[in-house]
Amino acid sequence: MLSVARRPLSAAVPVGNLLGIHLFQCPDTVGIVARLSECIASRGGNIHSVDVFVPDDKPVFYSRSEFTYNPMLWPRDVLRTDFLNLSQHFSAQRSTVRVPDLDPKYKISVLASKQDHCLFDLLYRWQEGRLPVDINCVISNHDRLKDNHVRRFLERHGIPYHYLPTSPGNKREQEILELVQGTDFVVLARYMQILSEGFLKAYGKDIINIHHGLLPSFKGGNPSRQQAFNAGVKLIGATSHFVTPELDAGPIIEQMVERVSHRDTLQSFVVKSENLEKQCLAEAIKSYCELRVLPYELKKTVVF
Amino acid sequence: MLSVARRPLSAAVPVGNLLGIHLFQCPDTVGIVARLSECIASRGGNIHSVDVFVPDDKPVFYSRSEFTYNPMLWPRDVLRTDFLNLSQHFSAQRSTVRVPDLDPKYKISVLASKQDHCLFDLLYRWQEGRLPVDINCVISNHDRLKDNHVRRFLERHGIPYHYLPTSPGNKREQEILELVQGTDFVVLARYMQILSEGFLKAYGKDIINIHHGLLPSFKGGNPSRQQAFNAGVKLIGATSHFVTPELDAGPIIEQMVERVSHRDTLQSFVVKSENLEKQCLAEAIKSYCELRVLPYELKKTVVF
Amino acid sequence: MLSVARRPLSAAVPVGNLLGIHLFQCPDTVGIVARLSECIASRGGNIHSVDVFVPDDKPVFYSRSEFTYNPMLWPRDVLRTDFLNLSQHFSAQRSTVRVPDLDPKYKISVLASKQDHCLFDLLYRWQEGRLPVDINCVISNHDRLKDNHVRRFLERHGIPYHYLPTSPGNKREQEILELVQGTDFVVLARYMQILSEGFLKAYGKDIINIHHGLLPSFKGGNPSRQQAFNAGVKLIGATSHFVTPELDAGPIIEQMVERVSHRDTLQSFVVKSENLEKQCLAEAIKSYCELRVLPYELKKTVVF
Amino acid sequence: MLSVARRPLSAAVPVGNLLGIHLFQCPDTVGIVARLSECIASRGGNIHSVDVFVPDDKPVFYSRSEFTYNPMLWPRDVLRTDFLNLSQHFSAQRSTVRVPDLDPKYKISVLASKQDHCLFDLLYRWQEGRLPVDINCVISNHDRLKDNHVRRFLERHGIPYHYLPTSPGNKREQEILELVQGTDFVVLARYMQILSEGFLKAYGKDIINIHHGLLPSFKGGNPSRQQAFNAGVKLIGATSHFVTPELDAGPIIEQMVERVSHRDTLQSFVVKSENLEKQCLAEAIKSYCELRVLPYELKKTVVF
Repeated sequence: MLSVARRPLSAAVPVGNLLGIHLFQCPDTVGIVARLSECIASRGGNIHSVDVFVPDDKPVFYSRSEFTYNPMLWPRDVLRTDFLNLSQHFSAQRSTVRVPDLDPKYKISVLASKQDHCLFDLLYRWQEGRLPVDINCVISNHDRLKDNHVRRFLERHGIPYHYLPTSPGNKREQEILELVQGTDFVVLARYMQILSEGFLKAYGKDIINIHHGLLPSFKGGNPSRQQAFNAGVKLIGATSHFVTPELDAGPIIEQMVERVSHRDTLQSFVVKSENLEKQCLAEAIKSYCELRVLPYELKKTVVF
Repeated sequence: MLSVARRPLSAAVPVGNLLGIHLFQCPDTVGIVARLSECIASRGGNIHSVDVFVPDDKPVFYSRSEFTYNPMLWPRDVLRTDFLNLSQHFSAQRSTVRVPDLDPKYKISVLASKQDHCLFDLLYRWQEGRLPVDINCVISNHDRLKDNHVRRFLERHGIPYHYLPTSPGNKREQEILELVQGTDFVVLARYMQILSEGFLKAYGKDIINIHHGLLPSFKGGNPSRQQAFNAGVKLIGATSHFVTPELDAGPIIEQMVERVSHRDTLQSFVVKSENLEKQCLAEAIKSYCELRVLPYELKKTVVF
Repeated sequence: MLSVARRPLSAAVPVGNLLGIHLFQCPDTVGIVARLSECIASRGGNIHSVDVFVPDDKPVFYSRSEFTYNPMLWPRDVLRTDFLNLSQHFSAQRSTVRVPDLDPKYKISVLASKQDHCLFDLLYRWQEGRLPVDINCVISNHDRLKDNHVRRFLERHGIPYHYLPTSPGNKREQEILELVQGTDFVVLARYMQILSEGFLKAYGKDIINIHHGLLPSFKGGNPSRQQAFNAGVKLIGATSHFVTPELDAGPIIEQMVERVSHRDTLQSFVVKSENLEKQCLAEAIKSYCELRVLPYELKKTVVF
Repeated sequence: MLSVARRPLSAAVPVGNLLGIHLFQCPDTVGIVARLSECIASRGGNIHSVDVFVPDDKPVFYSRSEFTYNPMLWPRDVLRTDFLNLSQHFSAQRSTVRVPDLDPKYKISVLASKQDHCLFDLLYRWQEGRLPVDINCVISNHDRLKDNHVRRFLERHGIPYHYLPTSPGNKREQEILELVQGTDFVVLARYMQILSEGFLKAYGKDIINIHHGLLPSFKGGNPSRQQAFNAGVKLIGATSHFVTPELDAGPIIEQMVERVSHRDTLQSFVVKSENLEKQCLAEAIKSYCELRVLPYELKKTVVF
């Protein structure tokens, strides 16, 4: 499988110090990094890395920084204010700062349908401590979870489960909207319903989806694996992306591929594809939580 | 890059012996491998590997075998006759046997257009002894080669070069057909003309093409990289395939992918893509020459 | 990580048929594959693949075959007798035939010490159905398992757990020997005791160990990661191998590596190393169960 | 093969601007990045990336920055002075700034012995424009180059070639020293002589060597592949490192590995190993020229 190796979060945090991450987007101008590092240095903090991206053709500045600092010298609310001031100074479109060991984890809801491989994989990684999120609830429009290992898992960990069967006339979006209130973002772990533009607007925060194919090809639902199988492809893939009103056309966060051969059956295609989907979705969520991901232009992302 | 690692040709050929390769397709029945190995054993030969493929849903038998034998005990023409008899016995649709150290190399013609990266890469690999073919000529419909490093390379190695500019009304197919007479197969190294069904029938042998995208997506000409770039993909790919009358729809032989990120420009997309195309085409030709590739059903290949 | 991609077991087994695997080692002579395939064909079976290895410098024949057959036409005990006859005919040193869907799974015991990452990983894979073995018991010389997640797992699945603390004067080998009676092989999942030559002889079957370094370098116990860390290596590795009387010198089955950099701490070295050990051990066990592994000469293996 | 994917040099340099790279090592203190970015910003430059490394256990600050700037506003000698001032301000142990499109390429000498695979590979990459160095001469202690393709290549490109046969009593170090005067660093492309401590001191600059094994294992000369082959390893490797007086013990820059199996012969071990050596050496040189490499402690490197 071809996966990406992002640099891990700064390993060497001095004892008594904390790691901070700052993600930033503003109109490009001279001296942004200087001002940012000055701000951190003035509080006794140390920058470990700064990643900057300015597109060829647009004066937009994107950056991600990691720094360590002494929380006794730089209380969390002062830190917040300092970065807010920076943000205002540069008229930032986006500015997020997180101190993973101090701040509450991102809170998410997970929506799934009949296939629960991505859902169960997320739960397992979460249990292992490898997905830094709190799961406020799981919502499904299929009752398959009624009495299986996912359901038992949820009960054991006290994660609420909501069965909201949909019909062409009732997508249950109002109920979903209420359930996902208070989350930081929503994950569609093979949720086979299209969320309306109204829902997206009302929720207003990011929604991450996993698609079983290499977008922008193979858009849409189930046929894609059959199509790929019939086309005799030698590679299959998966794509995690942000949800936008246009189906399967939101900015791509992560893509992964795996080899297939003439020996693969439609069934082994599915097994390999599901394995890709699980990893691709988990990677996207992890990158998002580590403040690596920014939408960029209409259909792109910066992934630091 | 995600590439495939095919097993190398049998390393351990006893001194004085030769390696033979046999590729076979016939209606499935019991005892084909037994008969085949008996034939080889009866001449004192040793089987090194047999790879068999029988699709789930069709009684067709595909196999590829490697064996070593003593050429003093099994003269080349007797060997040929033995395998011909096998072929007739099983009503084989295809049966090819090659002794790479004894048989003439496959003879090919290469067609190219304005972009010569694949062409030059093929020539370089050929010079290094890594592509076991003889190149009977290079044909181009662009005069870009008139006086560049490719042309000098061809002259230095005595490979004829033919400049056949095409027009909408004249594809020069009759001339091409004459030039490729006597070749074992033809390679399209970014030849930007569509060969007519008439040409394909008249030539009658295999034609291998390289496409700058992951078929079956991104069919057609140049727009694909721009499309992929605009779509913000995180992976780009290349596909080598057999040419059939339907554009970019022939059986896929090999596919490769490479990571791209927000830092890539359209230009670096092109560089990465060209690098993939070179490797993907070379791998397909190499696999073909080692008798690893068989068309399978309408749009698929077996690649042993 | 650089891991190997072995071909999966034959995907396409016709309905009503079974897959058989045959592993074979005998003095090299002409016609072994022929005789083997004839035997299978004569019972209506179909060979899917045959892999043969004959070293350059020794007339020894190693092979592994996969075939499908109709169990109504070829009862298991007749099949056993047929391959036994073959084995006798060729004076085979080793001959094993398995029908995974019919035969009992391999029975193993797992020995561990204080570190339980490999042990827990094995158990997890086993629960997921990805390690085709039955675990007859887990033995540890550390009481760390007394009340942790591994212990609860074992209880939930009814796998006996034996705590056998060792001392320099008492390796508890006699007790271990009794506990592992009836197993097909033994797995040392980071068992930090050296098993005596007497034990190895008395047990008489294969024992697979995992070592936290790229043998033959970094032999011995814990210092290796510290050594590697101090040496500023850019790659770390793990090795699974057969146990022989000489410490860490048995035939290597599988090796894996992972990148490290100046950013890695001794602790992150350990995390990466443990991850390698888990995968490397699981891969070795899986290969062994699929009859892919044969010792070869004194210190080598054939891994088909 | 497991190779590393370093981020390419900043792709998006605005028209009329230039890319600068700055590598820095000084005692750790607060505000270094702030001061550095302020310096760049004050001249109208833009930082693209800053990579910082401070070891856990030592207050040493290492950084590498990429920035773009307008050469009309920041003349090269002013830029030099600015960074020199920074260097003095922080009592830097090392401070290098390069503007690849403006500064002369690094000048190197290459030393080789009988085996010329690494030498020829370097030359080929150099000709292709993929190694940003000027080669002032090639020195060999074997006359194998007297009349082969390497020699013809050197003549065609006007690179002086010096044949300096060594004997146990005469290592020709004085002559070598004269020939390498004026170079920025020296490359040992399989030079099978040990350079004396005196030579290293007299030259005083970095020397990069390629070793055919995964150091710190398999030190020393030719036996290593035979040892690895005999040990039945499943992975072989290569190491590029800085030369220090202790044989094969200098700080490691890059390591690469490749799979081998029972099918590999000693000869195919050598082929795979040579292929690794070529890539590993080229990668080390490229990283060095892009100011990514810093020695760190006695035996380590930071490779940004």
